Order: sequence, then structure tokens, then C-alpha cells
Amino acid sequence: MANSRFEYVKSFEQPDVLLPNTWIVVRIDGRGFHKLSDHYAFTKPNDRRALDLMNAAAVEVMKELPDLCIAYGVSDEFSFVFHPSCQLFERRNGKLVTTIVSTFTAHYIYKWSEYFPERPLLPPYLPSFDGRAVIYPNSRILRDYMSWRQVDCHINNLYNTTFWAMVLQGGMSNTDAEQELKGTVSADKNEILFKRFGINYNNELEIYKKGTVLYRQYELEEPKATKSPTDEDTPVVESKQSRSQQDKIRKLRRKAQVVIDHVDVIKDEFWEKRPWILSGTPGKIPA
Amino acid sequence: MANSRFEYVKSFEQPDVLLPNTWIVVRIDGRGFHKLSDHYAFTKPNDRRALDLMNAAAVEVMKELPDLCIAYGVSDEFSFVFHPSCQLFERRNGKLVTTIVSTFTAHYIYKWSEYFPERPLLPPYLPSFDGRAVIYPNSRILRDYMSWRQVDCHINNLYNTTFWAMVLQGGMSNTDAEQELKGTVSADKNEILFKRFGINYNNELEIYKKGTVLYRQYELEEPKATKSPTDEDTPVVESKQSRSQQDKIRKLRRKAQVVIDHVDVIKDEFWEKRPWILSGTPGKIPA
Amino acid sequence: MANSRFEYVKSFEQPDVLLPNTWIVVRIDGRGFHKLSDHYAFTKPNDRRALDLMNAAAVEVMKELPDLCIAYGVSDEFSFVFHPSCQLFERRNGKLVTTIVSTFTAHYIYKWSEYFPERPLLPPYLPSFDGRAVIYPNSRILRDYMSWRQVDCHINNLYNTTFWAMVLQGGMSNTDAEQELKGTVSADKNEILFKRFGINYNNELEIYKKGTVLYRQYELEEPKATKSPTDEDTPVVESKQSRSQQDKIRKLRRKAQVVIDHVDVIKDEFWEKRPWILSGTPGKIPA
Amino acid sequence: MANSRFEYVKSFEQPDVLLPNTWIVVRIDGRGFHKLSDHYAFTKPNDRRALDLMNAAAVEVMKELPDLCIAYGVSDEFSFVFHPSCQLFERRNGKLVTTIVSTFTAHYIYKWSEYFPERPLLPPYLPSFDGRAVIYPNSRILRDYMSWRQVDCHINNLYNTTFWAMVLQGGMSNTDAEQELKGTVSADKNEILFKRFGINYNNELEIYKKGTVLYRQYELEEPKATKSPTDEDTPVVESKQSRSQQDKIRKLRRKAQVVIDHVDVIKDEFWEKRPWILSGTPGKIPA
Repeated sequence: MANSRFEYVKSFEQPDVLLPNTWIVVRIDGRGFHKLSDHYAFTKPNDRRALDLMNAAAVEVMKELPDLCIAYGVSDEFSFVFHPSCQLFERRNGKLVTTIVSTFTAHYIYKWSEYFPERPLLPPYLPSFDGRAVIYPNSRILRDYMSWRQVDCHINNLYNTTFWAMVLQGGMSNTDAEQELKGTVSADKNEILFKRFGINYNNELEIYKKGTVLYRQYELEEPKATKSPTDEDTPVVESKQSRSQQDKIRKLRRKAQVVIDHVDVIKDEFWEKRPWILSGTPGKIPA
Repeated sequence: MANSRFEYVKSFEQPDVLLPNTWIVVRIDGRGFHKLSDHYAFTKPNDRRALDLMNAAAVEVMKELPDLCIAYGVSDEFSFVFHPSCQLFERRNGKLVTTIVSTFTAHYIYKWSEYFPERPLLPPYLPSFDGRAVIYPNSRILRDYMSWRQVDCHINNLYNTTFWAMVLQGGMSNTDAEQELKGTVSADKNEILFKRFGINYNNELEIYKKGTVLYRQYELEEPKATKSPTDEDTPVVESKQSRSQQDKIRKLRRKAQVVIDHVDVIKDEFWEKRPWILSGTPGKIPA
Repeated sequence: MANSRFEYVKSFEQPDVLLPNTWIVVRIDGRGFHKLSDHYAFTKPNDRRALDLMNAAAVEVMKELPDLCIAYGVSDEFSFVFHPSCQLFERRNGKLVTTIVSTFTAHYIYKWSEYFPERPLLPPYLPSFDGRAVIYPNSRILRDYMSWRQVDCHINNLYNTTFWAMVLQGGMSNTDAEQELKGTVSADKNEILFKRFGINYNNELEIYKKGTVLYRQYELEEPKATKSPTDEDTPVVESKQSRSQQDKIRKLRRKAQVVIDHVDVIKDEFWEKRPWILSGTPGKIPA
Repeated sequence: MANSRFEYVKSFEQPDVLLPNTWIVVRIDGRGFHKLSDHYAFTKPNDRRALDLMNAAAVEVMKELPDLCIAYGVSDEFSFVFHPSCQLFERRNGKLVTTIVSTFTAHYIYKWSEYFPERPLLPPYLPSFDGRAVIYPNSRILRDYMSWRQVDCHINNLYNTTFWAMVLQGGMSNTDAEQELKGTVSADKNEILFKRFGINYNNELEIYKKGTVLYRQYELEEPKATKSPTDEDTPVVESKQSRSQQDKIRKLRRKAQVVIDHVDVIKDEFWEKRPWILSGTPGKIPA
């Protein structure tokens, strides 16, 4: 509506459209969650309520943005994945990232009291998140990204489980525990857990060991004849889908339920049974 | 801590550092606030509680980020300004924008019930915001940016005040009011307001006419001998300030009170009396 | 060597590294070649010497930069293609583009007198080129890029061949010829050529109809069992190749001869017989 | 003219417009000039013909691009400066840089035989240049950029003059000379030059000590009352100049002679006497 001699300042805005036909991953991270988790007394090494709250907020993000095809969360971080065919907000980096960060924050704050009824939020300890978008040129690399986060989850969780057993059950100081763990490999930590504390790491909860995967639920499919993952080609979207096609696909996606899962995403099986994730085509709604 | 064959995916992250020695403006906007304001029955043309809530959330952002030197809000948008000397997050675009968007959202949601006690938030109508950063090479252009937003505020508010008077007091349909206002200039709208509804636009609240300016309060200074605004030079930060210098300045800024003002930021007076805003140097704390 | 209080200005340089694991196409274009071709009296519609000079300069670029795996030229433009695994100049956009533009220009000027002995260069009519880099996320899209240029070559050449026959042989004015060709399709132009001028477009030189493809020559391979081009996956370079590996591959590439070809690059055959182009792996040097 | 199903590949081109109202510096550098200067036997420490050739090529670039307001050259590098008001090629980074790199290369190759008649160019030793654009937000920083290059010139030239005196006149090995110079300051080198070789560094040619400045010549002006350089404000171009205005200014610039100068650009005097350089407004053509 406005029109003034000052409008030239708009010319300083710079475009930030992400390369077409690439996977877009928006990863958000809790800001200062170390301090925050102390303040609200999160249990160590994992606070189930905090993880459930993260997952609940992420499910809402998935619901609001049907263009998202998968998400993966661990600790105070969550990665949201848009398909190469995604045209949401014309693929503008800033718009995609801030929308996800803000929507996630809104639901996280809104739902807090449901998960921490006895620990009301109190400024200045108000949770917030930062985020960034990264693009990946094909589905092989997208899967490697997912694997990277899940390996990270495993390594951190094994470390934290051992560390906090040594401190909380073993009565060691933080520094002593840290010192002893320096240079140890997985097998060492498994042994410490088992020998000293009778903990079989394999029996830990899947949500702690594997993190959380969110995706839309369609009928699982039989994995096809052995097809190496490197054969998967990111589908080429040669021309922009029409707006009506996009809207139709969005509707089909909204119909699917968003499931919360704690499974291996490194091996092929997960992806072969759920081909709709990499293909970007909605699957068959289960009866 | 982690280390795996998947870590190469980190190499796909691209740097987004903003040009040194430029003003950074992060503007955030409410997402879908038209629908939202209907749902929560915001009063027309301005809802004072909604504006106060925006301002309250923005004050918290200013408090958490002492690097911010001024902010300007109107309707469901807010612009936050970092000084050219700002080194926060190494001036990374994504980090600055998402931190502001998330912090603002968190406080907005958290404080909602204080401003709208009788209208509790209810998903899916959860407020959220998107945002973007724009850089401006000198203080003359930064001031033009601020002027642009304030002129926009004026034009929109005069239009909305007239429109809603015609609809709510004059009993016109939205379409008829819109039709009649098409092509009118300011004088026409002022006349409609005065002649038909006895409203003197000048007597409207400053918060509606001027929007809201937030800044840190130091002792006002006497404007110096006539100095045209084009003479103001953006100070050159020739070398990065040391971390300790930056920390010291941050502390001084935290001490200052953040004030909520509704004044003209287009003319020189505002800036001349508050030279600390453009200089980036903390002023004298009032006794 | 130097060190002064002015060195801070270096901090204004911004990174421009191209996304890893993507095809890089550097396309250069003659600047003002319309005027230039008039000045040096290039023959119409195609000047064989001018094309041969373009190709000769491009061959030198291929020789100097073994990382290039294919190039395609038509008229006064040339596209140079780097493989997704390319690490040359750390994939810096500006460095890659300016190196190619400058090397090409140098050889073009240097070789001019060899191709146009009777038309010495004379400033201000000195040929120069601009250029840009574009990245493509997979080999399917890279091939579509190549096809786009070759289709463009065909359409332009058919038009120009017809237009100049009408003008030079048919004695029409430029405007009349242009007017008559407006709205015609390929079949129309073929008919004009054949009926009026006895020209069978199919018998035109391949260099005019197909443009020029440059690549390194290894032993041709038998196309494998029908494999649709969409199956081709851009190889994933999971970790940066070691410098010694890269150097070894460069040496192998330098050994191969750069050939000048005028063939169809749209169909699969070209690529299936020369798998080293898309794979990025040097082939077998012919005996 | 063309239109095909492959045209979607154009959507992968990304915009690279430089921030408005900032100084643009395009710096080009000789590629592999160390080797090249050996091959063509450039004299040490400075080869006058090589510098004159650099300057001659740069003058041609200045003439072809009237938007350039100043250039500075030293050794095998040249910096070309566009004014903040420059709209050439819509300020597209790639277009500006490649045009300068290619035009410079073309003239350098073309003029070679004029400056090195006895040393004809011979591939693969064909000179080429790479380049990059950097933007600076105000004239203070632009001047610091120029100062940076000139200080660099001084430091390198003093070192090289001393080093080559020790080697060529003093009969030292390169390694010994390098070793002895390690850790020396300017005074030490001046003393070595004077005491051992009777060379007064002050008497060296200005082109070696100061490098080369190119600018358009208008009537020199009297420096105004002491005005510190920090007071200079980059003029704000609030709205894009009309095309006709730009064309008019270009014509006026083309009329001015491009001069080759070897003077101090660090102190204020140079800039105060030639205000047209920083203002971007053509001055008065000398009678």
C-alpha cells in the first residue's frame, strides 16, 4: 500500500533461493540447553519428558508443513528434511528455516507445561532454538546425513550413559569420570557399564540409543530385489510441478499419520520398506 | 565427540557471514496473522493488547541480545538492528535471524496469557514468525530503512482507521469501504474521518500513528550544531574489537534500561538527542 | 610478507565455494560478437575459421585444466564441465570461472592470426568473453544441460541457414526475411531451403548442425545392457580424495588426447560408449 | 529463440548481484607469473617493460569501462574500482569480474610483442589472470583497501630490491640472502642497500616504490579546509539513476584522459585534489 522515497531500501534484500532438485535439511538446535537442563533439573543422561516434548513439537512441525518427508531428532536437536521436488516458499532459505524454527519453538513453549507440569517455565530460562539449512545433491548423501546424526546419537549416548553411571551410581567426580573415559572405545564403555554397574547397554531404551525418526505412515512395502543404495537416483523434477499438482500431493500427505519411531536408519531396510520417503510420492494409506 | 565415515556431509554446509561494517536489520513478520487475528478476535483497526504483547516480546529480545541497538515495531512485524561493529555469532546470517525469531516466538507464546487472559492459545492457531536479515552499508541508509517502516505504519494506519470507521461506525460493507477509499489521498481520508465520524486523526494514539521504537536509555544529549544527516559516517571498525572489549560494552548495554517509545524517527532530532544509537558506544546512564 | 593496519580490509572477501559433489558448468560467451563479426567480416551464417578458432582455444583450455571432462561449443559460446569430484581451486567459483575465461581469451587472441591471417586484430575490436558457473546436482541434469545447448544449436542454425539463404541467395532484405520466418516451424524452414535454394539441410556440415564436443579420448566401450539414463548415479565422493590420488588422475587425463567431435550428445549412445566422461575415471588409452 | 523441454536447466543459475551502494573492487592477479617471468627472462627485481605492459592493458580496461573510477597496479596484479553508484551489468559479480579479466587478458596478449619484441609469446607459457570482486561499504574502507595495496607494494619492493642487490651485485646465493633478510626491518634493508651497494632507496623509481594509479584526468582542485577523511561519506544513491543519466555520465567520463601516475594514495592530498574519484561525479575537463 505504501509508497515513499524510502522504498529504495528494499533493493538491499538479497535472494537466497536454494539450488533446485536438492534435498534440503533444516537442523535446529537448542540454545544454551546445557544451562537450561540444569535449571529445570533434566534427569541424566536422558530425560524422557524432554525428549518426548521435542518429539511432540516436531510432530506439529511435520503436520503444519506437509512438504516435509522425514525428520530425525536426538537430544536437543532436530533435522527436518524437504524433498528435492519441494517448492515451498520458492525454496527460500531464510523463509524455510525461520518458519520451522518459530513453529517448533511455539509448540515447545506451548506444550512445556504438559510435559513438565511441576517445573513451570520461568524467564530468563525460556527455551529457544537456532537453525540452519543445508542442501544435499542426491539421496545417497541425504542418507549419509541421516546416518551421521544417528551414529552421533549412538556415540554420545554410550558415552553419556557410562559417564553418568560412573558419577551417579559409582560416586565418581565429573572430572575423574571424564578422565577415565578419555581414549576409551565402545567396547571399553560397554564393559564398564556391565562389569561395574550390571548395565547391558543393549537393553537401554531404543529412543536413547537410536534417537527419533518421524515420517508419514503409509503401507509398508516389500523390499525389492537387492538394489544397492547407490543405485537410488534422486528423481529429477524437470519442470516445476503445477501449483494444483503440488496442492494435491500436500493434501495426500496431510492425510497420512505422522509416526514417531526409534529405528535404524543407516541400513537399507528402513528406506526400502518406506519408498515414499525418498521418492517424494505419497504411498498407500493403510486400511 | 563423534567421528565416522559419514562426517563428510558437514562439508556441504555453506558459510553465510554478513559483510563486515554494515548495519544488520533482522525483520520478523507474523505468519498468517490475518487469520489469527480473526480467530482471537483482535479489535480493529488496532488491538492494543496485541501491540503491547509484540512490544513486550521485543523488549525481551533486546535484553537477551545487548548487541542490538534499536528496534522498530508496527502491526505484526518487528525490525531489530545490529550495529556495524557487531560481531555476535561472527555475524552469521542464519544464526542471528533464527536466534531472534525463536527468542521472540518463545516470549510471545509465554506472555500471551498475560495479555489475552480470556483468549487462551489453541493449536492449530499458534502464533509464529518468519524473518530475514538485510544489511545496509551506512547510517544514512539505515535511517532511510527506519523511515520506510514508519511511513508505512502511517499510511497503513490512516487507511485502516478510516476503513474500520466506515465499516464499524458507518455500517458500510468491507467492499464498499474499500471501493470508496480506492485512489484517495491522505487529505481525503482525514476528511472522511473528521466529517463523517468526528475523528481527528491527530488525536489517535501515538502507538498507532508512529509505531514503537525500542532503544536503551542513556542521558539525552543536546543536538550539536546543525549537521546534516548525510554527514554522519558509519564508524569504521578497522580491526575486530577484542573479545574483552566487546564483553565490556555488552555489560554496559545490559545496564541500560530498554525503553518503549512512540516517536518520530524520520527527522534528525530523535537521532541527534540519542547519539549512542548510531555510534554504537554506550552513553551515560541517567542518575 | 606485508603487514599493516590496513590488512583488515581482507576480511571483506567472501567465500564462494561451490556445493560439493555437483557438476560444475562454466559457460563463456563472446562479448559484443555481433558487432565484432561484422567488423572482421565473418561469413554468414557460419564462419568456419571463427568456429575452428573457438575450438582451438577450447582445446587449449582442456589441456591446461585436466579436471575438465567435457566441453561443448556453439557459435561464440563454450561450456566447460568439471566432474562432481573436482577439487580444483577448492571449487572456488570466481577462481574457476576467471581462470577459464582468461585462458580461453589468451589463446583466442594468440591464435587469431593463424585463423584470420588476412584480418589482423585491431583495437578497439579486440575479442573478449564473459562467463559464469552453474552447478547441477546429478548427471541426468548435466546431460539435460548439454542437450539444451545442442537443441539451441540446431534451432539457431536452421534459422540462420534459412535466413541467410533468403538474404544472400534470394536477395531479400533482412527485414523481409525475418518477417517471413516469423512463426515458421522446422518443417517450413527445411522446405524453404530445399524448394527455393536446393539446399538439403541434412547435408549441411555436422559442425554447424551439431556444434562441437571436446573430450579426452580413451578406448570406446560397448554400451551395456539397456540402462536408462536416469539410472546413472552421480558418483558420491564421500571424502575428499587425497592430493596424491588427484594428481595421479590428472596425469592420466593429461595423457589422453583431446578430440574435437561433432556428434549427437542428446541420445544415450554417446555417453554409453564413453563412460569415463560421467564416471570421472580415466579410461583405457587406445593402443 | 530456442524452446525445449531442457530449458528447465536455466533455473539452476543463481543470482550474484552485489549489494547496492557499496564500492566494488575487482582485483586480478597473474596466474603462475613466477614461472612465466623466469621463462621470458623478466629483469629483477622489477621489469619495467612488464610493468608498462600491465599498465597499458589496464588503461584499455579503464577506457572500455567508463564506470571504473580508479585502478591501482603493482607487480602482476591490478585492482579496478567501481563507484557505489555503478549499475553496470546490474552489478552482477560474475559479469563484472569476467569482463575485466577477459578484456585485460586480451589487451595484455595483444600488446605483448610491442613491449617484448625480442621475446615472442610461446604456449604453453601464455599469460593469463584470475580475479575476484570484493565490496566495501564506505569510502574510508575503500581508501584503506588502496592503502593496503600500496603498503604491500612498498614492503615487497624494498625487500626485493635488497634481496636482488645481494644476489646480483653481492654474489650471494638466494638462500643466503633470504636467510640474512629474515627478521630485518625497513631500516635494516635501507642500510644494507646503502652501505653495501651505494643504493639510496629513496632514489629508486616511483613506479617501483609506489606502484601505479590510473584515474581520469580533470582539473585538480584546491583541498578544502581540513576535513578528516573519516568525514567523507559515500554518497547515497537513493534511487537508481535513470538510464539516460547514467549514459550522460559515461560519456563525460569517456572524454576524460586516463592518466598513469605513481603517487602516494595513502595520505589525504591525493583524494582531496581529485574529489571526482570518490564523489563519482565527472570533474571539469582541463582547458
